Amino acid sequence: MKEKTDENALVKRIKRGFGSVRASSLALAPGDDAAVWNPTPGQETILTCDWFLEGPHFVRDLHPPEAVGWKCLARALSDIAAMGGEPRCFLVCLGLPSSLTGKWLDEFLRGLRRASRSSHCELAGGDTTRQDKVLISITVIGEVRKGYAVLRSSGRPGDNLFVSGTLGTADLGLRQLRRQGGLVRAADVALRKHLYPEPRLALGQWLAQNRLATAMMDLSDGLSTDLPRLCSASKVGARLDAASLPVTPLAKGAEAAELALHGGDDYELLFAVSSSKLDHIPRMFRDVPLTRIGKLTRETKIVLEEKDGARPLPSGGWDPFREG
Amino acid sequence: MKEKTDENALVKRIKRGFGSVRASSLALAPGDDAAVWNPTPGQETILTCDWFLEGPHFVRDLHPPEAVGWKCLARALSDIAAMGGEPRCFLVCLGLPSSLTGKWLDEFLRGLRRASRSSHCELAGGDTTRQDKVLISITVIGEVRKGYAVLRSSGRPGDNLFVSGTLGTADLGLRQLRRQGGLVRAADVALRKHLYPEPRLALGQWLAQNRLATAMMDLSDGLSTDLPRLCSASKVGARLDAASLPVTPLAKGAEAAELALHGGDDYELLFAVSSSKLDHIPRMFRDVPLTRIGKLTRETKIVLEEKDGARPLPSGGWDPFREG
Repeated sequence: MKEKTDENALVKRIKRGFGSVRASSLALAPGDDAAVWNPTPGQETILTCDWFLEGPHFVRDLHPPEAVGWKCLARALSDIAAMGGEPRCFLVCLGLPSSLTGKWLDEFLRGLRRASRSSHCELAGGDTTRQDKVLISITVIGEVRKGYAVLRSSGRPGDNLFVSGTLGTADLGLRQLRRQGGLVRAADVALRKHLYPEPRLALGQWLAQNRLATAMMDLSDGLSTDLPRLCSASKVGARLDAASLPVTPLAKGAEAAELALHGGDDYELLFAVSSSKLDHIPRMFRDVPLTRIGKLTRETKIVLEEKDGARPLPSGGWDPFREG
Repeated sequence: MKEKTDENALVKRIKRGFGSVRASSLALAPGDDAAVWNPTPGQETILTCDWFLEGPHFVRDLHPPEAVGWKCLARALSDIAAMGGEPRCFLVCLGLPSSLTGKWLDEFLRGLRRASRSSHCELAGGDTTRQDKVLISITVIGEVRKGYAVLRSSGRPGDNLFVSGTLGTADLGLRQLRRQGGLVRAADVALRKHLYPEPRLALGQWLAQNRLATAMMDLSDGLSTDLPRLCSASKVGARLDAASLPVTPLAKGAEAAELALHGGDDYELLFAVSSSKLDHIPRMFRDVPLTRIGKLTRETKIVLEEKDGARPLPSGGWDPFREG
């Protein structure tokens, strides 16, 4: 039976799916022209928006709809984590083919709701339209104590560079997904990391509240693409110690090294710590390893130090506008 | 010469285009993981997001890029107007074919910047990606004095229904555009209204600050589609007086009446006023006529009163998910 779904009905289904999430800061739930939200006194508002599109960001036949729902919000939450903020609420613009307004939408909403609940970030509103491909754009609103947001631009020469977690695991998971499809088993660490990344919200907040990071960003396009962005914003360069990179234990040798430098979608945090605060950074934050991978330098280039010498780091991560 | 544009360069061009807009409320300009914004004490935050997509919302060969830039922001601003709020800043997610990153993008940005400046709503951030078609999603952040936002859901039986401006003019402009193309002459009132709608920000704020409207929304999909939404939210019905509808003077008879009931894209305000406040509503607010078009009723259906009797109002506006 062909399902008839008009826009009002679709909006109702989305709202119903989120019915039990309700934070006190949201004065008006979705359904009006706009949402009304109460900012917390003494805090600044953090605003970020992210595309999540069928094609460049996920493949309909490969990515389970629940993972699409989780990941579209998780990657925007990762930007809030990168500022040291706490997420509050989000808006979702959704473009869907009519054929996906049934089971696909249900599972998508289940994943979105899980990400929303686990981060205490509630649905504030959105817009829906019919499209041939799935189009998603997510805006997340977060908060941070006034003056405590950690920027990309405040790193200084001599600061120590750290990353959380391991690098390249998500990209390995994508390769696995292309081989075997989207069914996640408990043991599929890499696949799980690709499909259900965990934004490092607690770590980002802890670093910001304790003023431990001079600069911070999240790794979405790969270290070799993202580190130059932090360096450019801070007007510094960097020296990376190849041997210290926390490569994924699930790959070996050259593949592991290449994944760590260029693999995208890890959503780990890259942050700079001044030498005077180095002792405050533990080896593990909860269950997430923190690894020192190099230093920021006055000379504005990015150098990779390997056993056999130093070489400039080529940018190998993902850029949708770079021509192949 | 084929232009090489990578994402970093594209983001730089967008930022440069907005370089001179700078409000004190934005603590951090675009370019970091997220924007940081200072909410005004005593005000609530209004959040809204809107699609503007090649295909359902505009046609690349028909709509000038400057109008695309203006309108994608103007229609989201209209949602802020409908709550009685003042816009503060916005985020834009932009998907573009590589072939449009030159002149098309420049003109798009010019229109977006004009809309941004005229509404004092500044660019806070965004996301870019490459796509075959132009995809735009806009999030606007506004503010309203705490407790003064005007909802859709607070209309009461007996309230008088008003609209601003004329109805159906934008849809007439779209018909004109399909005939003659997108070059706007000063005399093309309808075409201008379709391409460069003016969100009714000052009117919405005035109604909200003076607590004159019990319920309000903007007319984006046409009166016959939007009025049922307001009625449904307020759990009321409505009686419309066909003779009083402010039809566009640019069309006649049945066409004008049909445009007024079902024409989309006007971005006028529809608002309800209790009888005790009726005298406070002027015939004109600045240069915008305000017209009483009917009443909200206890009986939850929508009736159109015409010379020859009353009939239920069929929904004839635009819905992307309704099957033709």
